[in-house]
Amino acid sequence: MAVVAAEKTIIARIRQVAKGGKNPAVIAGIGDDCAVLRAGKGGENDALVTTDFTLEGIHFRRQWHAPESVGHRCLTRGLSDIAAMGGKPVAVFLSLALPKHLPQNWVNRFMRGLITLAEKYGCTLAGGDTAESPDGILADIIVVGTVPRGKAVLRSGAHPGDGIYVTGALGGSAAAVAQFEKHPRGKLNPGDYPRHFFPKPRIELGRVLREKGFVSAMIDTSDGLSTDLAHICEESGVGAEIEEGAIPRAMVGKPAREADLDLALHGGEDYELLFTAPRSKHIPSKISGVPITRIGHVTRIKNTYLVKPKGARLELKPRGWEHFGR
Amino acid sequence: MAVVAAEKTIIARIRQVAKGGKNPAVIAGIGDDCAVLRAGKGGENDALVTTDFTLEGIHFRRQWHAPESVGHRCLTRGLSDIAAMGGKPVAVFLSLALPKHLPQNWVNRFMRGLITLAEKYGCTLAGGDTAESPDGILADIIVVGTVPRGKAVLRSGAHPGDGIYVTGALGGSAAAVAQFEKHPRGKLNPGDYPRHFFPKPRIELGRVLREKGFVSAMIDTSDGLSTDLAHICEESGVGAEIEEGAIPRAMVGKPAREADLDLALHGGEDYELLFTAPRSKHIPSKISGVPITRIGHVTRIKNTYLVKPKGARLELKPRGWEHFGR
Repeated sequence: MAVVAAEKTIIARIRQVAKGGKNPAVIAGIGDDCAVLRAGKGGENDALVTTDFTLEGIHFRRQWHAPESVGHRCLTRGLSDIAAMGGKPVAVFLSLALPKHLPQNWVNRFMRGLITLAEKYGCTLAGGDTAESPDGILADIIVVGTVPRGKAVLRSGAHPGDGIYVTGALGGSAAAVAQFEKHPRGKLNPGDYPRHFFPKPRIELGRVLREKGFVSAMIDTSDGLSTDLAHICEESGVGAEIEEGAIPRAMVGKPAREADLDLALHGGEDYELLFTAPRSKHIPSKISGVPITRIGHVTRIKNTYLVKPKGARLELKPRGWEHFGR
Repeated sequence: MAVVAAEKTIIARIRQVAKGGKNPAVIAGIGDDCAVLRAGKGGENDALVTTDFTLEGIHFRRQWHAPESVGHRCLTRGLSDIAAMGGKPVAVFLSLALPKHLPQNWVNRFMRGLITLAEKYGCTLAGGDTAESPDGILADIIVVGTVPRGKAVLRSGAHPGDGIYVTGALGGSAAAVAQFEKHPRGKLNPGDYPRHFFPKPRIELGRVLREKGFVSAMIDTSDGLSTDLAHICEESGVGAEIEEGAIPRAMVGKPAREADLDLALHGGEDYELLFTAPRSKHIPSKISGVPITRIGHVTRIKNTYLVKPKGARLELKPRGWEHFGR
């Protein structure tokens, strides 16, 4: 948490906006070498830690994304990882490197987007680092959360026969990226692409799924269905069969239309939850107001197949989500 | 902890080098959405969290620093913050963004420098993020540690009358920077500037100081004596008087000579400990083999003065450490 004098105004501002909504687990926050966090007594909780970069030109562009959206999306990356473990966020740390002549107003609005979301989940901005960036805005978000001891939902628990489920709808975020790539000078209305500009992390939903004992493995769809499913399969030593027709596709644009299948299969940053559940569990079609859809099942054979509406089976390879700028 | 397919080889390599020396508090490390950490039973510990950037062009230059040194210094930034709280490191998280055509060998050597240091302190690489960097190597290091409940040494505990102490010697790291600035195409022998290339974090020393109840406030000298002392004074609501002649100055170069006073006063990245102790405490002149020097005392008046050898008093303003590249 080293701070150079030249960054004092930014730090002062960050401290100021970080004052509200202090989580009682944060004993000491910004203003010391480390933050001090205190878990509940009795060691009944495990701690969760996740870190995620948000880099200008890779994860966002200043001409496309309002600062509030950048701050919101930056924190969502971390919160969504906590959700995917069935955990509760406690504290957030922000390492922020800024180019020399960035207007203070950009930073203020970025912080507003981030803090507004943090407060919604009772999560305190407890520290971080600031530096001058050699080029572009660079943010690294660290979220610390808790989960009852031994209860974190891992990627490695899927078994052959388990159903595969996804929350919400897919492809909505990548649909905005596709629009930007078609019309680089265009503007998009955030309300037409909510999952891209202001995605809600599925914290509450992840907690309920864990508490009810519904899930055997879980991940968030940050890299896209094909890649995130491959992560579960790899960690669990299993394969999968996905029904193309069952995949819930996001409604995007104006007038609203379904996101392309390709984006729903491979587009990242939807921050939905992808999970597996034993056949014996009855999964509700909605939890906390969010639809849940069964899209396939886990197989013993370690390949992953996409079953087309007429029954043809194609191998589904993880294509990886490339963000912008490659 | 999102990972795109293109980065798989780097991740695989990082996983491989991260396998050794697993801290038992790390229940699940790399390979899930979050790392899962378990503190001791009974809630007897608080958790410490710190984050620090290491950016190419700001904190290091590829032509000046071997990759092992960059990895070592990157982790030292975090470990030193844990030392300054009197804590013990448990887990480290690395967010690493790399430019497209960086040789894999650079990454391997960087990781070797980082992991060698981590293993020395029983600290597990438990997660992080990787991304493609738009420009230059960008690393953010997060270290999680523990300290007995309520015992973290803060910056805010200094009282008027307390002695001010520093471990080791100052100015050694900035002396290397000064040499680089004079001879940008030159090479330095790391053995002649150990505090710059391979600084040892004062973990053991910080722990002993805390356990013995010696210290009232503590910080590490990452930003330089004048700035770090100002942090203690600001957080404690006090001032200070420092004796110029008492400041221990590092021996640097070949033949070895004392670092300039200016560098000892304002040069950063020495990663020594700066602490205050009540008058009643007898502070040994050496702990764990590291010299400890009394350099002044805390005052009620909130200004900070440097007392020259002939008795003149000059105001000592925090000058801030600017690294390279500004």
